Amino acid sequence: MNAYLPPPPEAIERFLAEVAFTGDGLVPAIAQQHDSGEVLMMAWMTREAIAETLASGRVCYYSRSRRGLWRKGESSGQVQHLVDLRLDCDGDTLLALVDQVGVACHTGRRSCFYTALRDGVPTALTEPEVDPETLYGGGR
Amino acid sequence: MNAYLPPPPEAIERFLAEVAFTGDGLVPAIAQQHDSGEVLMMAWMTREAIAETLASGRVCYYSRSRRGLWRKGESSGQVQHLVDLRLDCDGDTLLALVDQVGVACHTGRRSCFYTALRDGVPTALTEPEVDPETLYGGGR
Repeated sequence: MNAYLPPPPEAIERFLAEVAFTGDGLVPAIAQQHDSGEVLMMAWMTREAIAETLASGRVCYYSRSRRGLWRKGESSGQVQHLVDLRLDCDGDTLLALVDQVGVACHTGRRSCFYTALRDGVPTALTEPEVDPETLYGGGR
Repeated sequence: MNAYLPPPPEAIERFLAEVAFTGDGLVPAIAQQHDSGEVLMMAWMTREAIAETLASGRVCYYSRSRRGLWRKGESSGQVQHLVDLRLDCDGDTLLALVDQVGVACHTGRRSCFYTALRDGVPTALTEPEVDPETLYGGGR
C-alpha cells in the first residue's frame, strides 16, 4: 500500500463544505477494509473528526457517549489507516476505506456486524479473534 | 444464488428485540452487494421496515423525508434482494447483504459513495450507468 498523502488544509475545507451534518453536527461514517471489502463498523464523525482523519491519515471518530474525539485504536492499538474517504450522493454519509490493524470491534471480532438470524435465532456468526480484556481492560 | 427463505414471525420478533432504535424509532442500515463487497448506500429503517424486509426478502427502508416505508426499487425497478441482515455489536446499526438489481444510487450510479478528494478537489469517481430520468422521472 502506498503511503497516505494528506490533502492540504484548503482541500480539507472543500471536502467539509460538501458534508451535510445533522443538527447535532454529526455524520455517520462506515469503515470498510479497502482490499477485502469487509464492512467493519459504523460510527460518527464531526467536522473536527473528519479534518483530523484527513490530515493525519488515521481514522478519528466522535464518541457520542464520551462527547469527544475518538482516535480509533488509541488505547487498543487497533488503528485504522485511511486509504480514501468517500462521501455519498446527498453528502450525509461517509465511507472510509481503511487498512484495519487487528480487529475493529470492541468484542475482539474483526467486524462489528456478526449477528444474524440462523434457525430463527439471533446468532453470532464469528468468534472473537482477540480477548477484549487484552484490548482495553474494560474501556473502549 | 439460493432463494431467500423468510424467517417465521417469531424469529423476526426475536431479531427486532435485539435492535437498539433511536428515540425516533430509526436505525441506520448499510446496503452491501453480497458478492462483490461493494458498499452501495446507507438509509434508515424502522421496526416495520425491518419486519417487511425480513418477511419479503426485498429491502424496505423508511424515508425520513416522505415519512413512510420506502420499498427500494418500487418506482425505479432497482430492487435489492435480501441475502442476509446483520446487526452490529451494540445493536444500533444494520448491514444488509443484498443482490442489487441495476443501480443503488438515485443519480444512476451503482453506489452512492462516489465522491472523494482528488488533486485537492471533491471529485465524482464514477459516472452514472443509467440516466436517472429513466429511473424515476424526477422522484425517488
